[in-house]
Amino acid sequence: MAIVLGANRYGKAETRLVKVDRDSDTHRLVDLNVSTALSGDMADTHLTGANDKVLATDTQKNTVLAFARDGIGQIEDFGLRLARHFVGGPIHGARIDIEQYPWTRMGQHSFTRSGEGTRLAVVRFDGATATVKGGIKDLTVLNTTGSEFWGYPRDEYTTLPETKDRILATAVTAKWTFASTDVDWAKAFETARTSLLEAFADTYSYSLQQTLYAMGSRVLTNVTEISEIRLSLPNKHHYLCDLSPFGLDNPGEVFQVGDRPYGLIEGTVRREDR
Amino acid sequence: MAIVLGANRYGKAETRLVKVDRDSDTHRLVDLNVSTALSGDMADTHLTGANDKVLATDTQKNTVLAFARDGIGQIEDFGLRLARHFVGGPIHGARIDIEQYPWTRMGQHSFTRSGEGTRLAVVRFDGATATVKGGIKDLTVLNTTGSEFWGYPRDEYTTLPETKDRILATAVTAKWTFASTDVDWAKAFETARTSLLEAFADTYSYSLQQTLYAMGSRVLTNVTEISEIRLSLPNKHHYLCDLSPFGLDNPGEVFQVGDRPYGLIEGTVRREDR
Amino acid sequence: MAIVLGANRYGKAETRLVKVDRDSDTHRLVDLNVSTALSGDMADTHLTGANDKVLATDTQKNTVLAFARDGIGQIEDFGLRLARHFVGGPIHGARIDIEQYPWTRMGQHSFTRSGEGTRLAVVRFDGATATVKGGIKDLTVLNTTGSEFWGYPRDEYTTLPETKDRILATAVTAKWTFASTDVDWAKAFETARTSLLEAFADTYSYSLQQTLYAMGSRVLTNVTEISEIRLSLPNKHHYLCDLSPFGLDNPGEVFQVGDRPYGLIEGTVRREDR
Amino acid sequence: MAIVLGANRYGKAETRLVKVDRDSDTHRLVDLNVSTALSGDMADTHLTGANDKVLATDTQKNTVLAFARDGIGQIEDFGLRLARHFVGGPIHGARIDIEQYPWTRMGQHSFTRSGEGTRLAVVRFDGATATVKGGIKDLTVLNTTGSEFWGYPRDEYTTLPETKDRILATAVTAKWTFASTDVDWAKAFETARTSLLEAFADTYSYSLQQTLYAMGSRVLTNVTEISEIRLSLPNKHHYLCDLSPFGLDNPGEVFQVGDRPYGLIEGTVRREDR
Repeated sequence: MAIVLGANRYGKAETRLVKVDRDSDTHRLVDLNVSTALSGDMADTHLTGANDKVLATDTQKNTVLAFARDGIGQIEDFGLRLARHFVGGPIHGARIDIEQYPWTRMGQHSFTRSGEGTRLAVVRFDGATATVKGGIKDLTVLNTTGSEFWGYPRDEYTTLPETKDRILATAVTAKWTFASTDVDWAKAFETARTSLLEAFADTYSYSLQQTLYAMGSRVLTNVTEISEIRLSLPNKHHYLCDLSPFGLDNPGEVFQVGDRPYGLIEGTVRREDR
Repeated sequence: MAIVLGANRYGKAETRLVKVDRDSDTHRLVDLNVSTALSGDMADTHLTGANDKVLATDTQKNTVLAFARDGIGQIEDFGLRLARHFVGGPIHGARIDIEQYPWTRMGQHSFTRSGEGTRLAVVRFDGATATVKGGIKDLTVLNTTGSEFWGYPRDEYTTLPETKDRILATAVTAKWTFASTDVDWAKAFETARTSLLEAFADTYSYSLQQTLYAMGSRVLTNVTEISEIRLSLPNKHHYLCDLSPFGLDNPGEVFQVGDRPYGLIEGTVRREDR
Repeated sequence: MAIVLGANRYGKAETRLVKVDRDSDTHRLVDLNVSTALSGDMADTHLTGANDKVLATDTQKNTVLAFARDGIGQIEDFGLRLARHFVGGPIHGARIDIEQYPWTRMGQHSFTRSGEGTRLAVVRFDGATATVKGGIKDLTVLNTTGSEFWGYPRDEYTTLPETKDRILATAVTAKWTFASTDVDWAKAFETARTSLLEAFADTYSYSLQQTLYAMGSRVLTNVTEISEIRLSLPNKHHYLCDLSPFGLDNPGEVFQVGDRPYGLIEGTVRREDR
Repeated sequence: MAIVLGANRYGKAETRLVKVDRDSDTHRLVDLNVSTALSGDMADTHLTGANDKVLATDTQKNTVLAFARDGIGQIEDFGLRLARHFVGGPIHGARIDIEQYPWTRMGQHSFTRSGEGTRLAVVRFDGATATVKGGIKDLTVLNTTGSEFWGYPRDEYTTLPETKDRILATAVTAKWTFASTDVDWAKAFETARTSLLEAFADTYSYSLQQTLYAMGSRVLTNVTEISEIRLSLPNKHHYLCDLSPFGLDNPGEVFQVGDRPYGLIEGTVRREDR
C-alpha cells in the first residue's frame, strides 16, 4: 500500500482585531479573534515544497485586517465576505472561525469588558454553497436549587448518594446551524442567547441532559432559522460539605467547588420531518 | 556562618467555596476563593519534622468551610473572623486572601457569571493589630480615544512614533489599604470600583501613568477610609494597522491586539500629612 | 417539522489519576488524565428526566479508579478494558480519552516531570468493534535553520518578504489510527515519537506543510500497524528583528517570538491501495 | 491630609526573545522572557502628563533586542548589562526579570523543549549597587514514598487522618540571592538545581516544611556565593482512593490528584553570623 496525502488545510489562527466605528461621537467597538483555514489543491507544497498554490497565512491575516476597514457588521456576514473572497483557483474551500468578545458601554468612548459569553460564528464556503453556524461559549450559569439527581442504576462501582436538591452549574458552549444565509444575525443571536439563559433558569431539572434538551429545544422554538443546535455542558460540580464533624448542619448552604473531574454532557437538538 | 531558618509561612491556598443564603425565596450567592497562611513558632517542623505546632492545612480548609456556615457577610469581615481565630499559641500571625467572583442575578435562584472584576480582600492579624486591604482585579477597560503619547526622550534605541490619538486599554489590578477596620466594606468597595471606572473614562490621558494617578487619587478622594492604593496596570497594546499597502487609509479604525510584550505601569497613591 | 434529540453522549472528563507500582523496590509511576463518554438509549433522561438508563458520571469515575487497582499497563489497553466494560444494555458506545504525562526517574522513588510531549490514546467500542488511536501533544520542537519560505503567490494583500533562512518551530499534536488492536503499544509509541522528531530535524523544509508530510510519512513507514496519522502543527512564528535603526545587522541571530496570530497547518497522511 | 504619589515603576513586560548563536555549525539557542522596570523622578508624568523623563517602554524593548545582538551569555550577566544601561539621569533604579526556557539538543540545529524547570534571574541596580538573584520555577518533582505526616494538633476542625506513607509532590519555585556579582553563574545554577533535586529525593520527610528546609540548606551548603534562598512549594495533594466499596484494598497504589485547594509552604533559609 502506498503512503498518500489525505485531508488537509492551513490558515492563520487567532488574529486579534479591534475595529472602532468613529462615524459618530459615540464610538462603537468590535473586538474579534479571527481564524482562517483554506483547503484545495495543496499536494505540491506537501510533497515537493513548491508554494505556488499556497496563499501565505500572513496574506490571510492581512486580508482579514483590510476587510475590517470597511466595517465588520455582524460576524456571520464578515465571515461570509472573507470565505467567498478566499475561494478560487487552487483554493476550493474556506472556513472562517470568529469569536466576538462582549464589552459594556460606560461612556461615549469608554467600555468595560463583560464576561457573559463570547459570541461565535463558523462560516464555510466550498465555491458553491455557504453554511453558517452561530454560537456562544463561556456563558457560565448556576441555579442554587431546582435540580435533583436520582433514579440512576447502581452497579458495583456506584457510591454517589441520590439528591433531591443540588446546585446545577455549567459553562455553556453552544453552536447552532442556520438553514440559510438570509437571516437577521443580530436578532437570531440575541434570541438564542436569551432562550438558553431562560431555559436554564426555568427548567426544573432531573438531569443536566434534561436541561440540555430544554435549552436546545427552546432555541429552536424561538429562532426558526436555526435547524440544529449542539450543546456542550460541563457539569461544574458543587459538593455539599459535610460539616457534621464540627457539630453543624448544612441544609444546602456551603459547597466546595471542584475543578476536575467534571461531568461533560453533550447533545444535539434538531428539526426533523415527521 | 551558620545556615538558619528565615521567614516562613504555610497554609491552604485556593479553597473554592460557594455559600447560598436560603433564608428567603430569593437566594443569595457568594462565590469565593480563600487562601490562608499562618506563621509563628515553626522551627521544629522545619528542623526536626516534629509537627506538634503545625495546624494542618486540611484543618485550615475545614475551618474556612465551617465558618462559612454562619454566613460570609462582607469578605473583609470574613477574613477578620478567620484571622483572629487562627492566631494564638504557636501561631503568631495569619494572612487571609479572599477573591470574590461576581454573578448577576437572572431569577430567584438563577445567576450568570459576570466578568467585570473580581473583588479582593487581604486581612492580616498579628495577635494585636488587624490590617485590612480591599481591592479588585481583572477589571478590563478600554477608551477608543482621548489618549495621546508623545514628548518622551528619543535615545539611540527609540523608534516609536509619537501619537495624538490611540486606544488605551488595561486590566486593572488595585489593592487599597484601609486606615481602620470600622468601615462599611460594601459601600467602600462599590465607591472605589466606580471611582476607578469613572476616572479611567473621563481622564484625557497623556500617559498611562497619568491615568493611574487619576484613578488612585479619585479613589482616595471618594473613600475617606482608604489611606493608600496600589495600582498595577498592564498597557494592553492595540497597534494601528498599516493598511497603506492595500490602498487603504486607517484613521484610528483597525487595530491589531498584542498579547506580549505589554507595558506595565505600577504605582501607589497615598495620603500624607503636609 | 418536529424538534427531536440528535446525537448525544455524556461522561466524566479529566479524572486525574496516579498509579504507583510498588511490586519492587524501584517504584514505577503512571500519571493519567482519563475522560469517559458513553452513548446509547438516552432519550428518556433528555425528554422526561428519567435516569434509569444513565450510568452516573461519578460511577464512571469510580470505575476508572477501581480498574487502575489492577495496574494500568499501556494506556491503549487500559482504554480498551474500560470501553468494553461500559458497553452493554442501554449503553451502545463508549469513548475513552487518556493523556499520559511524562516523568523522568531520578531515584528509586523519585521523579521529575518532563515536558517532552504528553502521550495520548483514544479508544472507541460500539459493542462489536474496537478502534484505537494513539498520539502525542505538546511536543515542542525548533530548527534554527534549514527552513525556507518563498515562491508563494503575491496578491493585493501580500506583504510578507520571501526568506531563504528562517526558524521553524511548532508544538506537535499528532493522532494516529491503528489498523488493529494487536499491537505492541509501547514500541509503536516510541517509534512514532522518534520518527516525528527525526523527520522534523532532518527535513530541509520549504514549507511547514512539507515538514508535516515528511513527519507523517516517516511514522507510517516505521510503524506498519498505523494506517493513518493526523497532524496539527501551529507555526510558532519567530520574527527576525530589524536592528538596522540601531546600526546593527541581524544575520539570523535575534528573533522576537509571537504568541498570536500563528499559522496552523493541519493534514492527514494515510495508506492507500493503488 | 494631601493626596500624593508614592512608589512607582514602569517598564515593558514579557518581551519574548530567541537568540541563535551561529558561530559554529552547531547552533546554540537561548530562549528568554525579559521584563524591565524603571523608577526614578517620575512625578511629572503622573501629575501633569509631561513625558520628558519617561523612557518609552517600546524603547526598553528595543534595547533588550539590540543588546541581545552581542550575545546573551548567562542571564544574570545579561540582566546586569541592561540594568546598568538604563540607570542615569531621571532613572534612579532598574529591575530586570528574566526567565530562560530549557531546550534539549537533538541535532546540530534542532531542539526539543524540555519541561524540567525555567531558570530565573532578577537583577536590580540603583546607580551604586547591583544585586542579583537567581532561581528556578516549574520544577515539578514527586516521591512515591518516604513521606509521613502525623503528630499535628487536633482541634475541633481537624478531620485529616495521620499517615505514615504518602506521595509528596510539589512544583518548586526558588529564588536565591547572591552575596556578590563575581560568580560563575552557570555553575551556581547547575549546582543549585541539582541540590534542590537531590535534597528533595533523599530527604525522608515528616512535613513539606522539613523538605523545604533540607532543600534550602543543601543549596546554601553547595553554593557558597548564595546568601539566602526563598522557596515556595505548593503541596500537590495526591489523595489515596478508598476502593473498599468495590471490595479492593489500596496499599498506596491508586491516587486521585487534586487541583485545588493545595497546601502552600513558603520559607527562607539563609546564612547568619553566630
